[in-house]
Amino acid sequence: MKRNPDVYAVIMAGGGGTRFWPWSRERRPKQVLPILSPRTMIRETVDRIQPLIPPEKILIVTSRSQARQLHCQVPRLPTENLLLEPEGKNTAPCLGLAAVHVQKMNPEAVLIVLPADHSIRAPEKFLRTLQRAAEFASREKYLITLGIPPTGPETGYGYIQKGPLLGRVRETEVFRAKAFREKPTLQKAKAYLRRGDYLWNSGMFIWRVGVFLEALEKCLPEIHRNMQELKISMGKRREQKVLEKVYSRCPSISVDHGVMEKAPNVALIEARFGWSDVGSWAALWNLWPRDPGGNVCIQGGESKIFTLDSSGCVVRGEKGLIAVLGLKDTVVVEAGDAILVCPRDRAQGVRRVLQELEQRGWRKYL
Amino acid sequence: MKRNPDVYAVIMAGGGGTRFWPWSRERRPKQVLPILSPRTMIRETVDRIQPLIPPEKILIVTSRSQARQLHCQVPRLPTENLLLEPEGKNTAPCLGLAAVHVQKMNPEAVLIVLPADHSIRAPEKFLRTLQRAAEFASREKYLITLGIPPTGPETGYGYIQKGPLLGRVRETEVFRAKAFREKPTLQKAKAYLRRGDYLWNSGMFIWRVGVFLEALEKCLPEIHRNMQELKISMGKRREQKVLEKVYSRCPSISVDHGVMEKAPNVALIEARFGWSDVGSWAALWNLWPRDPGGNVCIQGGESKIFTLDSSGCVVRGEKGLIAVLGLKDTVVVEAGDAILVCPRDRAQGVRRVLQELEQRGWRKYL
Repeated sequence: MKRNPDVYAVIMAGGGGTRFWPWSRERRPKQVLPILSPRTMIRETVDRIQPLIPPEKILIVTSRSQARQLHCQVPRLPTENLLLEPEGKNTAPCLGLAAVHVQKMNPEAVLIVLPADHSIRAPEKFLRTLQRAAEFASREKYLITLGIPPTGPETGYGYIQKGPLLGRVRETEVFRAKAFREKPTLQKAKAYLRRGDYLWNSGMFIWRVGVFLEALEKCLPEIHRNMQELKISMGKRREQKVLEKVYSRCPSISVDHGVMEKAPNVALIEARFGWSDVGSWAALWNLWPRDPGGNVCIQGGESKIFTLDSSGCVVRGEKGLIAVLGLKDTVVVEAGDAILVCPRDRAQGVRRVLQELEQRGWRKYL
Repeated sequence: MKRNPDVYAVIMAGGGGTRFWPWSRERRPKQVLPILSPRTMIRETVDRIQPLIPPEKILIVTSRSQARQLHCQVPRLPTENLLLEPEGKNTAPCLGLAAVHVQKMNPEAVLIVLPADHSIRAPEKFLRTLQRAAEFASREKYLITLGIPPTGPETGYGYIQKGPLLGRVRETEVFRAKAFREKPTLQKAKAYLRRGDYLWNSGMFIWRVGVFLEALEKCLPEIHRNMQELKISMGKRREQKVLEKVYSRCPSISVDHGVMEKAPNVALIEARFGWSDVGSWAALWNLWPRDPGGNVCIQGGESKIFTLDSSGCVVRGEKGLIAVLGLKDTVVVEAGDAILVCPRDRAQGVRRVLQELEQRGWRKYL
């Protein structure tokens, strides 16, 4: 695959560990767990993009507390490619930070923005799509987003409405993005599906740094101003202090809400490479091979699992034996000092479990 | 409560640990677990009968491998009151062994036979019933069995058909037992319930040792002959060797099937003292207090349990946290190195789990 020297990747890896509790924890988030294979998700993400982008052009934005365990997973990345946010302020400041950093390395850079913890079933197609998106971004002044053709009325994703065709890069069509919609109700999601011109927002973006910073200046001038201040300090002794100061001033806002919804120059490419955000234990049922009974059994460490008269279950063990008898569509997870059992269609509700733990003062399980 | 010096108790405690797996194991059967209270079941059984019978007249029949852990639970019993079977041969040889032992202590003895692992909700009524049964047994030549008025078409119990009234001990009526029926199909159980003259076989018996040994001689002459041979050796050096020899010769047969079904002099007393054989995890749902959501949560050791949007569950932990979210009528058990999850109405099927473990060669979990 031909590498374009102007193309950089920035991987957003700041999230905490809630959705895969009790396997993921505050200090061991999803991206550093081998959720889909023996490799951790951050490792998979970096390995996947490497045919297109060399390690020295791959950046990771994360928090100080996660930096070390992330870097252990991808030691080929130079230390300075890990950008450490002093605090979490959602994705707009995070991508502002990445943009000024990359701009300093290469003012003409095209940035591919990727989450650290998604599943891609067809990596070749994924790379081809990114390559063409980067080509479009390098010659047109657009913020490109990848939209996933929906397979059901999901309420856990944002949606993007497809507008008219803007152009083509070989057989890949690029559309105008007409509207961004936040996570809908089930009724709305069904309506989007019926209309047929709505796609899931994958959270993957492609843009020239200059084009993005221009949009940031227009849509979120406060963040832009702060990032410019930071840029001036970069490489100087006071950089760290300035970083902390500018972050403390930035509002906490997502790039979708703060930039993409407002900017006039947003484009959309349909992404058909088997995408999942691996959003909960339930998602694993579609992503792992199943046993003859139709259960996903993930045997970590020394664990043994067996299912009898059961179907549709997702079972994950770490040590000891898990015996599942006569269960349907249930999640059973043993990890560390905790066990979770819930119906598969309630797996999203694990957040409520964590709230409850917090309320009871059982923080050691978080 | 007035104690009758001729009354003895024999507690059958030879069973292995299958029904409460993974808490109960081969080497840690149900009777040595604190399943219903902080006291173990054998301890509860002995404590319950003590107002009627002093420790020196309480015998326990068990296996060599269980003797020590049982005796630790009831240290007030003299060591010689633990009768050790060389091998399990079901209840007929076990009660033959107990009968010859007690006969040697007191030829006029009345024996109360009790399982080691049942639940009795009204111990006062229980003792009163036993006292009257013993009174009847001491003056009439009957083998008395306690029948439980059924509360549903249970297929896990044997049934006894009630015959005509034989007599009274104060207000307690004694009936002839017309027929013993093995565990029925659901259809048959429903028919028994409709007829109204069938009771559950509790496995509790009351008889004079002489009357029982006479019945044994008629119904199971081989066992009787062997027990007489043993009796002659008792107190002599060769006793242990003879015990092993006679046990190896005895057929494996239950007292219900081998004696009660055949003997003409079987009587029945209705037992109304809130009985349960605590036959499975599901039984605990009726025997433990429930949380506001309607779940039974048993926190052993250092464990913590919490349920959210759940009802009808039985959850038992030993260490760490168990979080149950959105579950209905499910059993979740963590004990030692194993976890079991199954619907409450499948809890009887834990035997199949153990068979599967055996087949896979995972004996260490048994």
